Amino acid sequence: MVPNLVTALTGPINELEQRMLESVPAIERWFRLEWMEHTPPFYCSVDLRNAGYKLAPVATDLFPQGFNHLTPQMLPLAVQAAMAAIEKICPEAKNLLLVPSERDDGASYVEHLQRLVQIFTQAGLNVRLGSADPALAAPRTLRTAGGAELVVEPLLRQRTRLGLKDFDPCTILLNDDLRAGVPRALQNLYEQYLLPPLHASWATRRKSRHFRSYEEVAKKFSKLMGMDSWLINPMAAHCGEVDSGTEQGLECVRSHCEAMLVKQRRKFKEYGIAERPFVVVKADAGGMGAGVLTVRDARELDAARLQRALARPAGQEPGVSEVIIQEGVPTCERIGEAMAEPVVCTIDRYVVGGYYRVLGGRASDESLQAPDARYVPLAFAEDQQHLPARGARPGASAPNRFYMYGVIGRLAMLAAAYELEATDPEAEDYA
Amino acid sequence: MVPNLVTALTGPINELEQRMLESVPAIERWFRLEWMEHTPPFYCSVDLRNAGYKLAPVATDLFPQGFNHLTPQMLPLAVQAAMAAIEKICPEAKNLLLVPSERDDGASYVEHLQRLVQIFTQAGLNVRLGSADPALAAPRTLRTAGGAELVVEPLLRQRTRLGLKDFDPCTILLNDDLRAGVPRALQNLYEQYLLPPLHASWATRRKSRHFRSYEEVAKKFSKLMGMDSWLINPMAAHCGEVDSGTEQGLECVRSHCEAMLVKQRRKFKEYGIAERPFVVVKADAGGMGAGVLTVRDARELDAARLQRALARPAGQEPGVSEVIIQEGVPTCERIGEAMAEPVVCTIDRYVVGGYYRVLGGRASDESLQAPDARYVPLAFAEDQQHLPARGARPGASAPNRFYMYGVIGRLAMLAAAYELEATDPEAEDYA
Repeated sequence: MVPNLVTALTGPINELEQRMLESVPAIERWFRLEWMEHTPPFYCSVDLRNAGYKLAPVATDLFPQGFNHLTPQMLPLAVQAAMAAIEKICPEAKNLLLVPSERDDGASYVEHLQRLVQIFTQAGLNVRLGSADPALAAPRTLRTAGGAELVVEPLLRQRTRLGLKDFDPCTILLNDDLRAGVPRALQNLYEQYLLPPLHASWATRRKSRHFRSYEEVAKKFSKLMGMDSWLINPMAAHCGEVDSGTEQGLECVRSHCEAMLVKQRRKFKEYGIAERPFVVVKADAGGMGAGVLTVRDARELDAARLQRALARPAGQEPGVSEVIIQEGVPTCERIGEAMAEPVVCTIDRYVVGGYYRVLGGRASDESLQAPDARYVPLAFAEDQQHLPARGARPGASAPNRFYMYGVIGRLAMLAAAYELEATDPEAEDYA
Repeated sequence: MVPNLVTALTGPINELEQRMLESVPAIERWFRLEWMEHTPPFYCSVDLRNAGYKLAPVATDLFPQGFNHLTPQMLPLAVQAAMAAIEKICPEAKNLLLVPSERDDGASYVEHLQRLVQIFTQAGLNVRLGSADPALAAPRTLRTAGGAELVVEPLLRQRTRLGLKDFDPCTILLNDDLRAGVPRALQNLYEQYLLPPLHASWATRRKSRHFRSYEEVAKKFSKLMGMDSWLINPMAAHCGEVDSGTEQGLECVRSHCEAMLVKQRRKFKEYGIAERPFVVVKADAGGMGAGVLTVRDARELDAARLQRALARPAGQEPGVSEVIIQEGVPTCERIGEAMAEPVVCTIDRYVVGGYYRVLGGRASDESLQAPDARYVPLAFAEDQQHLPARGARPGASAPNRFYMYGVIGRLAMLAAAYELEATDPEAEDYA
């Protein structure tokens, strides 16, 4: 199920989109069968790039932010999805402890937290916020631009349980991607539900691992649709343990870039695409946008540029990194003059809304994850015909242009489910 | 979860409503625990009456109509709920056979059917319509006012399976309440899922049985809320096997009316309600609105009036009926000058929207189920604050005036779940 949202798409519907719109029952059933075998991530946001000739996910965030960019009309969808998730995981849950990100306390993030509190309160939980920051000794008040207040309390770790003063939660909802490592307060919790699990954090995750899973998912899905999986899959390669300061490290990255550009040129020729291919190079671990290097010619690549791209955020050691080399997917969507990337938000298996990340003054091949990004909520389409009605007169109803985004977003979410299964430290217990 | 819809309520929030708005997490958790023990009806609509001093369900339809009166913005909620239901009942389902009501083919009902087709198509099923009418020999085309077409095909019953030509469904969705009895085509289907089950039809159901279950549910819920269950429970009594033509039959009904009016007067006194009580008398079986008798004084009741009220629709035998005698609940809601009754629509455990049934020229104690009723969709509230935000400044956000209706609607739905368990012909197999 994908709500019909107003996208910035105004061009004609291409073959890929048309095929998806015609295959709704088959696609939705395929997802249903996949979810019988695999557990969806608790919540998720997926950044997409629509190049016109292909549509691909570029980042899958298992500790999503930006739920405040969903229009208020989406709230009931999110609540319903949260109810379905809680019902399956912890139906008897009464108290939910929300652990916000340590790295962000701007007004927009506080609004996001407020939205999460609303969602889970309406889903039937008492929600309180606890900070993993050991420096926090007393409750701290966060404020939204609208003047609403949220109180964050110091976490209280007892031997086997985590809570707050006078608050013993059965479920803990993490909204920090733990890129700086897993705090002691969150380690060895076996009595409470920790959502998502610790191995969903960037302390464990690798982008290359995610995109290997995505490739597997994309191939399965493409078989169902009888199409080339390249149309939805960004090709990727991986250099383990690159010391970006050495010629050897540089050479590994350079040769992968070269090979990737050759593969892309072949595909462009096959499809008659008159564009110049490019490759993006990023650190395989870690969080958002810290260094994405765009390469159009492998000879451009030098040690200094690579080092800058792979430098970890302040306070973390630079130098040796794992590196992912990925086919670049430009974005062809514009809001006004500015480039726009659709973001699909999910809870459990459901698409609960979406928004655009918009950035002026960027080229279509650059990262739009930057502090000066704007966010544009996607509203429900006014003409609420979600699908050409069965038997309706031709032209009587508009297609849901958000549907395709909802499908690709869920494929990335499904890939994350595969990924989490593969990296689950407790998986052997069940094998 | 109850979407925030614009109701006609403009008066102050009374104590009952206030208590519900303050208890959202506890109420939602209570429902969650109930649904661990009881299976919700597949879909449902509940007619409510808000008297100001009390709020009660007056009819619980397990073969709901009127989904076309939900605003299009509700569609994603309905689809998501349908996905959750299908996932639990028949996740591998591919084809869904929808069996419409035999009694209705007006444009409004065709729009309702179209909405059901949209919901289940988007939920991932191939949907086709089949008629149980043995006179239908060839496909027949139904048209909505908007010009959309739906084709109804003759049912094809094979030995153990029901389907259409070249269409073998794993799931059959009934939208006929079978008040005229269960057609042979639908009997003895053990290989396919029949939703709702046959004992949810008026061939088996009795209103008195439903309201006994509702009373049980209302008492449990009132205990949670620490309140008098009368505030949400319409008192009811039952006369089995009344021959409305005889003095004996009349006497049973009359004495129950008398006793009910006494009970009501006592309650009115307790709560300081300056209204004149009334009682409604209806046939215990059967469908909508065919004869509701309003009684303010038991002495008014005579055999002729009773006989008219209990007369079955044309083609069915009159005379002996079971009778339900229920506390009358007037409606205090108005749209313009006209009386309005809120209707809450559910799929699985979720409230997916609501609308008003509106009828001019009726008294507040009369039935609004009539051919000349109008329907007013309830839109999402513009100020989408579903709840007073936690820590928000006082007055910063408007309460969800639809919440209370969503709660009472779900209590009636839960009562139907209890009722269906009690009347399940296969229940002994599990006992």
